[in-house]
Amino acid sequence: MAERLIYLPLGGAGEIGMNAYVYGYGEPGRERLIVIDLGVTFGDMDTAPGIDLIMADVAWLEDNRDRIEAIFITHGHEDHVGALGLLWGKIQKPIHCRRFTGALARLKMEEMGQPVEHIHIHAPRPEVVSAGPFQVQFVPVSHSIPESSALIIDTPAGRIVHTGDFKLDGTPVVGEPFDPITWHEIAKEGQGVQVLTCDSTNIFSPNPGRSEAVLANPLLDFVMSQRQLVVATTFASNIARLRTLAEAGVAAGRKICLLGRAMRRMVTVGIETGVLDRFPPVVSPEEAADLPRDKVMLVVTGSQGERRAASAQLSRGRYLGIELKEGDSFLFSSRTIPGNERGVIRIQNQLSEMGVDLFDADDGMYHVSGHANRPDIQAVHDLLKPRMVIPMHGEHMHLREHMKLAEARGIPSMVVTNGTMVEISGAAPRVVDHIDTGRLYLDGTALIGAMDGIVRDRIRMALNGHAMVSIIIDEDDNPLPDAWVELSGLPERGRAGVPLAGNIESELAEFLERADDRTVMNDDRLEEAVRKIARQVSMEEIGKKPEVTVIISRLAAE
Amino acid sequence: MAERLIYLPLGGAGEIGMNAYVYGYGEPGRERLIVIDLGVTFGDMDTAPGIDLIMADVAWLEDNRDRIEAIFITHGHEDHVGALGLLWGKIQKPIHCRRFTGALARLKMEEMGQPVEHIHIHAPRPEVVSAGPFQVQFVPVSHSIPESSALIIDTPAGRIVHTGDFKLDGTPVVGEPFDPITWHEIAKEGQGVQVLTCDSTNIFSPNPGRSEAVLANPLLDFVMSQRQLVVATTFASNIARLRTLAEAGVAAGRKICLLGRAMRRMVTVGIETGVLDRFPPVVSPEEAADLPRDKVMLVVTGSQGERRAASAQLSRGRYLGIELKEGDSFLFSSRTIPGNERGVIRIQNQLSEMGVDLFDADDGMYHVSGHANRPDIQAVHDLLKPRMVIPMHGEHMHLREHMKLAEARGIPSMVVTNGTMVEISGAAPRVVDHIDTGRLYLDGTALIGAMDGIVRDRIRMALNGHAMVSIIIDEDDNPLPDAWVELSGLPERGRAGVPLAGNIESELAEFLERADDRTVMNDDRLEEAVRKIARQVSMEEIGKKPEVTVIISRLAAE
Repeated sequence: MAERLIYLPLGGAGEIGMNAYVYGYGEPGRERLIVIDLGVTFGDMDTAPGIDLIMADVAWLEDNRDRIEAIFITHGHEDHVGALGLLWGKIQKPIHCRRFTGALARLKMEEMGQPVEHIHIHAPRPEVVSAGPFQVQFVPVSHSIPESSALIIDTPAGRIVHTGDFKLDGTPVVGEPFDPITWHEIAKEGQGVQVLTCDSTNIFSPNPGRSEAVLANPLLDFVMSQRQLVVATTFASNIARLRTLAEAGVAAGRKICLLGRAMRRMVTVGIETGVLDRFPPVVSPEEAADLPRDKVMLVVTGSQGERRAASAQLSRGRYLGIELKEGDSFLFSSRTIPGNERGVIRIQNQLSEMGVDLFDADDGMYHVSGHANRPDIQAVHDLLKPRMVIPMHGEHMHLREHMKLAEARGIPSMVVTNGTMVEISGAAPRVVDHIDTGRLYLDGTALIGAMDGIVRDRIRMALNGHAMVSIIIDEDDNPLPDAWVELSGLPERGRAGVPLAGNIESELAEFLERADDRTVMNDDRLEEAVRKIARQVSMEEIGKKPEVTVIISRLAAE
Repeated sequence: MAERLIYLPLGGAGEIGMNAYVYGYGEPGRERLIVIDLGVTFGDMDTAPGIDLIMADVAWLEDNRDRIEAIFITHGHEDHVGALGLLWGKIQKPIHCRRFTGALARLKMEEMGQPVEHIHIHAPRPEVVSAGPFQVQFVPVSHSIPESSALIIDTPAGRIVHTGDFKLDGTPVVGEPFDPITWHEIAKEGQGVQVLTCDSTNIFSPNPGRSEAVLANPLLDFVMSQRQLVVATTFASNIARLRTLAEAGVAAGRKICLLGRAMRRMVTVGIETGVLDRFPPVVSPEEAADLPRDKVMLVVTGSQGERRAASAQLSRGRYLGIELKEGDSFLFSSRTIPGNERGVIRIQNQLSEMGVDLFDADDGMYHVSGHANRPDIQAVHDLLKPRMVIPMHGEHMHLREHMKLAEARGIPSMVVTNGTMVEISGAAPRVVDHIDTGRLYLDGTALIGAMDGIVRDRIRMALNGHAMVSIIIDEDDNPLPDAWVELSGLPERGRAGVPLAGNIESELAEFLERADDRTVMNDDRLEEAVRKIARQVSMEEIGKKPEVTVIISRLAAE
């Protein structure tokens, strides 16, 4: 059978987060595979309470492990590398990335006790990494973290450009600028670009993106005009922003103090790997606490309202000896990711109660995005002249809008969501298979399936409360009349004004007294009858039906 | 003791939602009281899973019921009238409002089986409602619902202007325009305005607000340019918007179909009370389903992503015989309230998967706010020349910013949050008391306290899962060795690969065998020991500690 080139997203296509993409080349069903990125996304109370991390279900990769050549990581953001340590054990293939990304990947592997010697560090293009039928180059692009890279993937069926996350920034402050000359070359070499797989995050942003460099002066003006303690928060991995903030603070005569483990780690990794230079000296929280308030600037984690990050800690009171006060200033040099608003507002209100003056990104004055906007995406289409465009890294509506943009300009395109395998060696993308895919949840230390019912049960208990009923059947197969009911997350008293648990117990006692042997002898039947009574009584008393767990204990004859 | 005028917010001050304000006049501790608005706010999974409605705890009003003269309702939004039926039984005083608001208040009372004859309908100023020492007038203001009213509250200590929710709209399409002449009179009468208690919602919006009327042409252009079925969603109570949308549809040659109970009810109430005229005829969903797609426009509920509203239903597939398809258009003529983003994005993605083209408010092209912006608020300060300004209806940061605005212009002001009683008869607000206040939750049909621990238990079960342990102690006070463990919302298997429940049971069996009488005979001690073991085993196996409920059954000697 003829060889073909395939593309299969397992995560990140139809959502923003947990990126995991697969390319394959070879005979159908026997393609050799490479994996691009293994990222995480974060749970929320609505859909995944108690879940620490969410990642793509890689069962298909596990089943086809002998076909996988390698894993490539485009950059060090959590949604691209965060699942590496958790999922590597299921794949166990070499990991290729650049130095800074490699340092972060190493931490992810170490955290999970995985062998770090499988991480291979590469220089950018022109270095080529061979992985079976794939020849891969890392091409520097600008983004909100250093060393973000697009991948040039050359295959016998043509060249793929996989952009990773990128923006068009000629002056990214830290890290490498977007270089149109290189991209022009990439488009012209050989047969040109067969497939452009392209970041879609900002497809709805109508104006050209702005450079990181434009923030320096506004941020300096901002810090200069504050009279007391200044706090600024942004993503820990946005090292360019960290330096811009720190330099503004120093220029305004302040000492810089970094709060938050992730932020200190990023700066350390940045310095160690050489991507970050000229970072001003910092002081410890203890030193900062002893300095006059107008001589300090804190740069802190928690711009998304994360409960355990430094911003949240400061909003709750004294933290590491530092306490915010009336007249202090707190800048969110960030954008609130949709879904995180509640957490951010909670913190802002608490800061406001302390008398702290709040400042947000102010329509882009103090923040720029790390992703290409619509005109930038269009410019990349123009520059690369691909034979087809596959939109990636976006909610379904982003992918669809990106597809429409490509098609309007005569480039074949398709919305390819997680689990859809498309052949991309032809003139246009063509669906060839659907893979069962889904999400894995990290719950404590356990990896569970999103569809296992565990999280569903948690959501139901949270919405409906939980009633537990203990029934004892004696040695002669007679139920003891006093069923015991414990309620968790349910009103103590109902409409009747008497305790709800007691009310259910009475109904159950009555039922157990007259229950026939057929019911009593059958666990399922008995459980179902008991559950029904507990739910009915609750419905009458408090207007809702709780989750019910019935424990039946049968005493053995001695 | 000298009489004084007091202000006490019980809800709505330090949050947006569940408005409930109290004014009092008289000797300290014996003031006669009026209540302004009794609204609700909605729960979310993060803070109140399973809770249907949230409202102010009115225990203080209940304790001081004999001092209350009346309840006034400014307008018919849920956050102002939604708790009336639920809380009226605790207050039992006359309710005063205007006609349209009264029709909605009546529905709220009826739903809860409360007597509607306590609702008194009034004409706007110059009609005066007497309530003890208070002389109250309803003054029409523009807002996103008809008949929104500010209250002029004349007292022996001077005039209060309580704005309610308002914007400065001279052409509100439906309902009454904001009339600066009236406001000028109000400021000049008698001793002028002692206190302005003022909406703070949009204090951070720097530009003057825009009129509802500006939307007519863009909405018409929008509908005209669509080729297939058009769906538009907005707040059901925004009757002006409903008519503008419907008129755009009719002008574009389409039949209008309203989907969603709340929306049909609002239009009916609007027509019945005379505030809504010229609403185009509508067709039923069945008729709509039979018409060509380009001849129909649906106007539907669910702009905030509510799971049971029409938008969500349509995003899940066929609803009332109508199914959205490739090429249909869906307009959100609304702003997503912070915190609702996840629900809205979920619907938008599902619509996108159906091939539906999505349109949002597009920077205000298809939506205007119902609240006064910063320059409008400033204009009202100028117009009324109050001796003091009390910011209300806002998160803490809104109230604080509003206070700063007033103070910068030389008007005494203060951030007064829920539960703070201030004297407002002097030259500036002065705190005189703090009232224990909080939130009541409607859970099914039960009203529970936010701090009762019920919701806390639900959140804990959702985050940590729930393990139930049943222990039986026999007639001779010996524990039966086979403890039974049921898990809910927890991984089945842990690190060891064996069932977690079985693992806990083994540990418990071992413990029960060697447990001393002192532990076995004491329920609390035994429960604590069992809980500790269950949590320890879970921590080792799955890296997290579940909530544990222990049921101990002691068999009676026969």
